[in-house]
Amino acid sequence: MALDLKARGFATEIIGVDINEQHCRQAQTMKLVDIILPLDQAVAQSELVILAVPVHHIVGLLPEVLDLVQQQTVMDVGSTKQRAAEAVKTHPKRQNYLATHPMAGTEFSGPQAAVPNLFRGKVTIFCDVELSSENAINTGTALYNCLEMPIIEMNSEEHDLHAAYVSHISHISSFALALTVLRKERDTENIFNLASGGFDSTVRLAKSSAAMWTPIFTQNAPNVLNVLDTYIRELNLFKKAIENRDAEALNEFIAEANKIRKILKDPNSNRQS
Amino acid sequence: MALDLKARGFATEIIGVDINEQHCRQAQTMKLVDIILPLDQAVAQSELVILAVPVHHIVGLLPEVLDLVQQQTVMDVGSTKQRAAEAVKTHPKRQNYLATHPMAGTEFSGPQAAVPNLFRGKVTIFCDVELSSENAINTGTALYNCLEMPIIEMNSEEHDLHAAYVSHISHISSFALALTVLRKERDTENIFNLASGGFDSTVRLAKSSAAMWTPIFTQNAPNVLNVLDTYIRELNLFKKAIENRDAEALNEFIAEANKIRKILKDPNSNRQS
Repeated sequence: MALDLKARGFATEIIGVDINEQHCRQAQTMKLVDIILPLDQAVAQSELVILAVPVHHIVGLLPEVLDLVQQQTVMDVGSTKQRAAEAVKTHPKRQNYLATHPMAGTEFSGPQAAVPNLFRGKVTIFCDVELSSENAINTGTALYNCLEMPIIEMNSEEHDLHAAYVSHISHISSFALALTVLRKERDTENIFNLASGGFDSTVRLAKSSAAMWTPIFTQNAPNVLNVLDTYIRELNLFKKAIENRDAEALNEFIAEANKIRKILKDPNSNRQS
Repeated sequence: MALDLKARGFATEIIGVDINEQHCRQAQTMKLVDIILPLDQAVAQSELVILAVPVHHIVGLLPEVLDLVQQQTVMDVGSTKQRAAEAVKTHPKRQNYLATHPMAGTEFSGPQAAVPNLFRGKVTIFCDVELSSENAINTGTALYNCLEMPIIEMNSEEHDLHAAYVSHISHISSFALALTVLRKERDTENIFNLASGGFDSTVRLAKSSAAMWTPIFTQNAPNVLNVLDTYIRELNLFKKAIENRDAEALNEFIAEANKIRKILKDPNSNRQS
């Protein structure tokens, strides 16, 4: 985000704050940030503060930063929204905070994972905008316009539900797939050789870090468990159909699953047979 | 394959055989094939016959084609190998047959799904080569060399086991994910908007056709059920850890799953934090 905001002229100076000293050095070397400062000095010198840390740290960091701000807007980019909202519900500077979730990322983390134009064309979500000041909303809108991200709005409760239903379950399905293949397949050379049969794309998310994902799963546990139950149920139905060599049931399952083609509005969807 | 073999000079003329008349016309219009002929005439005029049909049809088609050949080599490119091997075990022309499985494909099917250079750099598997003639092996080797695919060998039993462990389970995990998200998420606009949070890549394989995959799952049922059991078990362990808000267990699961990074020898693996 720092890369793009600088390159696209939205930010003139980027101040970095990180507890990881190696990441601070890398971010400076790579010119992702102009300077590194301690949190209080960084907030004091900023017009806009963006919190991009694991979601269990946002809960503590967000009120701390709101304590420090005067007129500045504070945004987070976390993957869950309810806990952060609760943490600042009664904060006197609540209206300086804009809750956002840009739906874009990779399985990599740290400064060296930065890629330009990562966000372009992806959707960002604003939550509970009625609790944010016009200034905060305008600042956030200008920022995401600059990144070329369409903005949609929902409340933080809805956000966490839909994020679990679509994004969080995808990560669990991928982590469990990696674990399964690693357990069953002793010969890792086979995994590498056979991965291009679809495993590689399905397992991509399993490279994602525990530092980011464990707090998401525990914070959003009720919604995640709800959709995970459905997933396990579907797999058991699939299993029963295979046990019964029931080609008709399998055909129906797959035809039903294929409906995802239309919903994802795949640009290649005219290439189906 | 027809595209590449023609473009790379391996084949001078490609004869197409298909029961789907629309596909025949499309293949000719797109110049994937030079002419369309009935099976018996096509085999009589060919130096090499490649069977690329769903795996339950290979079982019937392969002995039929071997009945027709003189010196020609017959290859299949199916995703299971044991049933085909059994179907021609005692066939007098068995040695004309080379069992191959190029580990490359997309979620699309039909002539319009053809893409150039699909196979380059991916691995192909030869099965039970001791049952094939030197001529058949040499022909297959030349073909896959032309497609720039490294060749590995295993017997058809091993093939079906490893294919289930790596490729077939990936497809089930993806089909079930699509079904889950479609059931839970009534608002399809949300699916589209949130898909870039990882769902899109994990669900890609769920666009694959029942015509191809149902026969794979039923033919390879014992191996597929075996790995599917492990997958469901891993998901239940993951679920228990979330139920218990057990961050330590989740961290361990994810760290274990992350080991897939090294095995896939991801060219970006130096970008981990």
